[in-house]
Amino acid sequence: MAGDRLTTLTATEAAAAISRGTFSIEEYTRACLDRIDAADSEIKAFAHLDREHALAQARALDERRAERRSIGPLYGVPVAIKDIIDTGDYPTELGSPLARGRRPRSDASVVARLRAGGAVIIGKTVTTEFAYYHPGPTRNPHDHTRTPGGSSSGSAAAVAASMVPLALGSQTNGSVIRPGAFCGVFAMKPSYGLISRAGVLQLSRKLDHIGLFARSLPDLALILEVIAGHDPSDPDSEPFAAPDFRALQSEPPPLPPRCAFVRTPVWEKAESETKAAFEELVAALGPAVDSVDLPASFRAAWDVHRTIMSVDMAHNLAPLFAHGEPSAAMRKLLAHAKAVSAVDYLAALDQARRITAALAGIFDAYDAIITPAAPGVAPKGLGSTGDPVFCTLWTLSGLPSLSLPLLAGSGGLPLGVQLVGPAGRDGRLLRTATALIEMLREARKGKRRSPARSRK
Amino acid sequence: MAGDRLTTLTATEAAAAISRGTFSIEEYTRACLDRIDAADSEIKAFAHLDREHALAQARALDERRAERRSIGPLYGVPVAIKDIIDTGDYPTELGSPLARGRRPRSDASVVARLRAGGAVIIGKTVTTEFAYYHPGPTRNPHDHTRTPGGSSSGSAAAVAASMVPLALGSQTNGSVIRPGAFCGVFAMKPSYGLISRAGVLQLSRKLDHIGLFARSLPDLALILEVIAGHDPSDPDSEPFAAPDFRALQSEPPPLPPRCAFVRTPVWEKAESETKAAFEELVAALGPAVDSVDLPASFRAAWDVHRTIMSVDMAHNLAPLFAHGEPSAAMRKLLAHAKAVSAVDYLAALDQARRITAALAGIFDAYDAIITPAAPGVAPKGLGSTGDPVFCTLWTLSGLPSLSLPLLAGSGGLPLGVQLVGPAGRDGRLLRTATALIEMLREARKGKRRSPARSRK
Repeated sequence: MAGDRLTTLTATEAAAAISRGTFSIEEYTRACLDRIDAADSEIKAFAHLDREHALAQARALDERRAERRSIGPLYGVPVAIKDIIDTGDYPTELGSPLARGRRPRSDASVVARLRAGGAVIIGKTVTTEFAYYHPGPTRNPHDHTRTPGGSSSGSAAAVAASMVPLALGSQTNGSVIRPGAFCGVFAMKPSYGLISRAGVLQLSRKLDHIGLFARSLPDLALILEVIAGHDPSDPDSEPFAAPDFRALQSEPPPLPPRCAFVRTPVWEKAESETKAAFEELVAALGPAVDSVDLPASFRAAWDVHRTIMSVDMAHNLAPLFAHGEPSAAMRKLLAHAKAVSAVDYLAALDQARRITAALAGIFDAYDAIITPAAPGVAPKGLGSTGDPVFCTLWTLSGLPSLSLPLLAGSGGLPLGVQLVGPAGRDGRLLRTATALIEMLREARKGKRRSPARSRK
Repeated sequence: MAGDRLTTLTATEAAAAISRGTFSIEEYTRACLDRIDAADSEIKAFAHLDREHALAQARALDERRAERRSIGPLYGVPVAIKDIIDTGDYPTELGSPLARGRRPRSDASVVARLRAGGAVIIGKTVTTEFAYYHPGPTRNPHDHTRTPGGSSSGSAAAVAASMVPLALGSQTNGSVIRPGAFCGVFAMKPSYGLISRAGVLQLSRKLDHIGLFARSLPDLALILEVIAGHDPSDPDSEPFAAPDFRALQSEPPPLPPRCAFVRTPVWEKAESETKAAFEELVAALGPAVDSVDLPASFRAAWDVHRTIMSVDMAHNLAPLFAHGEPSAAMRKLLAHAKAVSAVDYLAALDQARRITAALAGIFDAYDAIITPAAPGVAPKGLGSTGDPVFCTLWTLSGLPSLSLPLLAGSGGLPLGVQLVGPAGRDGRLLRTATALIEMLREARKGKRRSPARSRK
């Protein structure tokens, strides 16, 4: 198979082909590296990449296979890692000159699980400064004059630009779902507690999540199966039962899924083309979707999130700021944090718990929430990474969420559809997403066949 | 047996006598109630007492016994409960007019365990206002013009005045060890996480502990065995292995215990007679005790504790203050809390973790720490409950601690010896205390026999 053919495969397809012996892990890794060589001088998705080290990992895995030893379900598929997630072989420089030369001694738990699951850890991807707003150099593969989103900028762009089939990011506000939407890939922020954050730069123990980028829903299920699970090194790691995510994702749901279209209290931040696209999407899905409004009390969630995030970041990053001044965006956040009283901070944590409890009720009646992933398509320019406002509520409440590349906005740029599910039911959310995409395909087919349907 | 004979028994002796049929649970309960009737108009240890309800519990237990059904290791021994611990039968008024008429619907977990273990829940004891400083009416049984200490004032006084053999208190700073010392009883603050606080007024999730008052070390082991254990309703309840506390307390240690005499950075707060008594005690114990100084960094612990306690109390008690103004002492604390920034609060929690970690090393070399329980004997007057300063460090670090009534100060008033052990090793701490008391008895005997020894 030609190299450029290989790099368009999904991880599931590539793993299957490797397991059948269609090509070797080294060939596949080489194809990814060639694609990176060709495209990354322009896209700038990678912060650290060592071609020889990646190939050495691939060859070692090929050798294990030749010895008929098991190498795990990823079968040598390369995975790119956001540069706030520790790796024992690559530097982890946190997107800031204040952490230049930082070399962790060991892998984060999630990276160790990837290696054990058969991944080639191909390199580290660009993050904004300490995974907050100040952007890195990465460009959006769909339009190089636009941001890929942040903070997991490089991971989203690398998957979108066919450099790797899978990448890890992290989300404390909207750092996975937003770049996933802007770059037109499948992105997932799994449930709070499902994936260990041990060995990952801590911004906020309450808000930090590991996130995933992939080219299909089966690929998300595949990587989730490798990295999900309890880890005593993360005090908030939950002992969720680890279901067979791949089986769950691919099986038809017992009943057609029902979804709640939630505009959220920040609907006015959505651009008009986003609003129109969502009204159309909901109409196309017909009786499977009800419009559900959140009570006014949910308006507080964004302030609550800002209080918790700013204070936790000021606390957790303080040792790093001993080495020098951070960016203006970060300094503004720190100034905000300093003015928060301890009593208000504890009240915000209580409010977050109440908001989370109140959202749970929606899932008594619906399988998932449908809502925008971002206000619109990726904004022009590289000076900002766009607005995470449509992700905040779902990060605060720790619910699993997906960005699905189902819509297109101006200039054909991707517009993400966010799907949010009940806590700890990540496999079911993947199944719901699969069924929804199928319903949508049917609806669009029907529409083409009988224009009368759209009048209903 | 005459009633006044019964009330001087330890819980262990009473339970054994009941199990042998020497007297009934009703007779024993009646003796306690008679003693309360006679003494409590002066001592004022009880906030709520219902003679008939207590006797009804006793008769019900006697009936169970008559039916040869098991009633648990407490065998009907009456236990008094601090009035911040919920009881489904008695009011729980938190020592404040702001909570007058408060009637919980169910028992706190620890009370439910006591009932299941065969206790008669005899009544509720006086607490200071919301278990903070503003005193209740209780007097010290050893000298009615003196405070019994606080905040578990009634529980300590009730045990000291032979009204009950056992009582529950709580400690967020020095609310068990200090009144235990002032009242000359055996008091214990078990390890953080060993006893559930579900259903107990929360002042500080980080600092709150349930505590115990008794007349002997075997009695502490007996009640600990009934109430210790994991409870999912308290998020900080630890799944410690529940050892056989009674067997552990009574068995001789494999080696003679070695203790660290720790003056702590607040030694200058100890009165001169306390200092002298401790120097003498340490001399009497000879080579079993080394003097160990804590590094200067430990001086921060008292500020760290005040930061955490004030903020947590302001947060947790806020709903109660909606009903009216608290005392001046409480208002002062709230004003302090309001001025603490969230970032400083999180830094204090980090410092507390570092202090706890630093203390753990002492127990590599020593079985326990010996240190004063209070600056001196119970102070004159009922307007204050005395100074918890010698308890703060051990509450902050969550280590198990005991107050042992081994010394006497001016006027023969009790002076408490505090023993602190490693986290989660509460049974071993009781064993160490038992062995130390035995060593001390031997040393004193030896001193009487050969005066030469004291010259050494």
